[in-house]
Amino acid sequence: MTKELIFGHKNPDTDAIIAAIAYSYMMNESGKDTEAVALGEPNEETKFVFNHFNYDYPRIISSADTKQVMLVDHNEPKQSVDNISDVEITNVIDHHRIANFETANPLFYHAEPLGSTSTIIWKLMNQARIEIPATLAGLMMSAIISDTLLLKSPTTTNEDEAALKSLSKTAGLDYESYGLEMLKAGTNLASKSAKELIEMDAKTFDMNNKSIRIDQINTVDLDETLQRKAEFEEAIKAEMSAENENLFILLITNILTSDTKAIVLGDDESVSVFEKTFDQKLVDNIALLPGVVSRKKQVVPQLNANF
Amino acid sequence: MTKELIFGHKNPDTDAIIAAIAYSYMMNESGKDTEAVALGEPNEETKFVFNHFNYDYPRIISSADTKQVMLVDHNEPKQSVDNISDVEITNVIDHHRIANFETANPLFYHAEPLGSTSTIIWKLMNQARIEIPATLAGLMMSAIISDTLLLKSPTTTNEDEAALKSLSKTAGLDYESYGLEMLKAGTNLASKSAKELIEMDAKTFDMNNKSIRIDQINTVDLDETLQRKAEFEEAIKAEMSAENENLFILLITNILTSDTKAIVLGDDESVSVFEKTFDQKLVDNIALLPGVVSRKKQVVPQLNANF
Repeated sequence: MTKELIFGHKNPDTDAIIAAIAYSYMMNESGKDTEAVALGEPNEETKFVFNHFNYDYPRIISSADTKQVMLVDHNEPKQSVDNISDVEITNVIDHHRIANFETANPLFYHAEPLGSTSTIIWKLMNQARIEIPATLAGLMMSAIISDTLLLKSPTTTNEDEAALKSLSKTAGLDYESYGLEMLKAGTNLASKSAKELIEMDAKTFDMNNKSIRIDQINTVDLDETLQRKAEFEEAIKAEMSAENENLFILLITNILTSDTKAIVLGDDESVSVFEKTFDQKLVDNIALLPGVVSRKKQVVPQLNANF
Repeated sequence: MTKELIFGHKNPDTDAIIAAIAYSYMMNESGKDTEAVALGEPNEETKFVFNHFNYDYPRIISSADTKQVMLVDHNEPKQSVDNISDVEITNVIDHHRIANFETANPLFYHAEPLGSTSTIIWKLMNQARIEIPATLAGLMMSAIISDTLLLKSPTTTNEDEAALKSLSKTAGLDYESYGLEMLKAGTNLASKSAKELIEMDAKTFDMNNKSIRIDQINTVDLDETLQRKAEFEEAIKAEMSAENENLFILLITNILTSDTKAIVLGDDESVSVFEKTFDQKLVDNIALLPGVVSRKKQVVPQLNANF
């Protein structure tokens, strides 16, 4: 049997890594030969999770060395391995919009508009009657907590809540206290450079042939984080020029109050699309986005409709 | 609750229509408000099926009059309702490649590389423990027989066979004798004009910005059908010029011997891609494709790789 790699998106967050591990476990239990790999280093939150469960972080790759691959938690080629167009995608499990995705052959593709890819895999494992070991349940819990901000993000569904509660039982771990500790671990920003911070959760989207970069940083103190604004702007300008990006949006999200302020830089036309979309003029490159915590649900579709 | 329309592709075949009916039944049993509709008149085979089970053919539409829709048995916009870009696609159930499909929002998308969309819906209904009434089972049987040419197409999987056998039990109908009768009903070509025949199972694909039309006709006698070659060529040329198509491939498939001859017309560059792909020079616009019965598995990916 041909071995297949399974991976989440570049600049991986906790769900991207753990969905790959969970789906690989499920596939191997079903008789396939797969390996979960990562398209980048763990962020602070993900490090906390792997330390907590004393679990090995997957091998890091930038290009796939198998002929066939499975994608989790993404489908857009820009977010995938560098050689994605040279390999066959046989399976996709995702909870994002579908865009710029194309295959020559039919494939297995399962997407649902749920808060976390790990919730979908939890459902598929239940359907296939595959038992989830306690450590894997703890990892999957962490992925759901991360993507739903402890069930507070507007992307959260009843199924995410049911999955989190069930996995919490299997793992024997209180999800509220563990979840808060885990989310706070991800907001340890002081030790990182601005360049490192913006790259931690970075995604690039094609919108009407414009390259739109939308990065997100979680914090527990917006004003403290924004004291580093000049440093962020410098890092953003360097990235934009290196990657030829038309618009760069850095979402800085307070996970305790569910509010976001964004630093926005770009060409005049793209900035004015942003201003129109969120009905405000930037002041000193800053936009106020009260109640916004989800890039996927509260930023990408709204921008996409105006580009 | 907002009503949603469910439909298969334009120039519908038996699976496109019946997958919509089956998925609508499943959705409505799950508490949604949906209506199965059709994007065109039934072909001869589909007429036979609806007559046999004394079941009403769905309402025919060309443009969707609801805000949200669900697609079955297709995803490419060219094969869908005319106003597909103005409506929100909330669900897709399909067994084709994914191409030129894009959404602004996350959605429910379930595709598997099985022989028939109705097989996928049979699996989903089993998972959801929704009982399939005898008449619906008879319709779903017919869709699987149609798409797999009675389990003989290379697209056929073990799951299609299992679904067909299980549905055959529920319907109380021998699938072999019924299936042969049904397939033969679809090859009643004499009463139709060449234009009607090529439009019966017509699909257009975007390949590297070329518009590639691939139509298929089933027959039980290739030579008899090819006696009408001049008439087909005239109809093909008229369609190509009306629709600005670069390449037109009419697959004429003998369902008893599983062989195909194709009439191929197009611009020089596209025809030479065809010739390279199938390793032969056209003779009098005719290509010989022994063993080819599946457009999806034996024609589209091979052409797509060379365009």
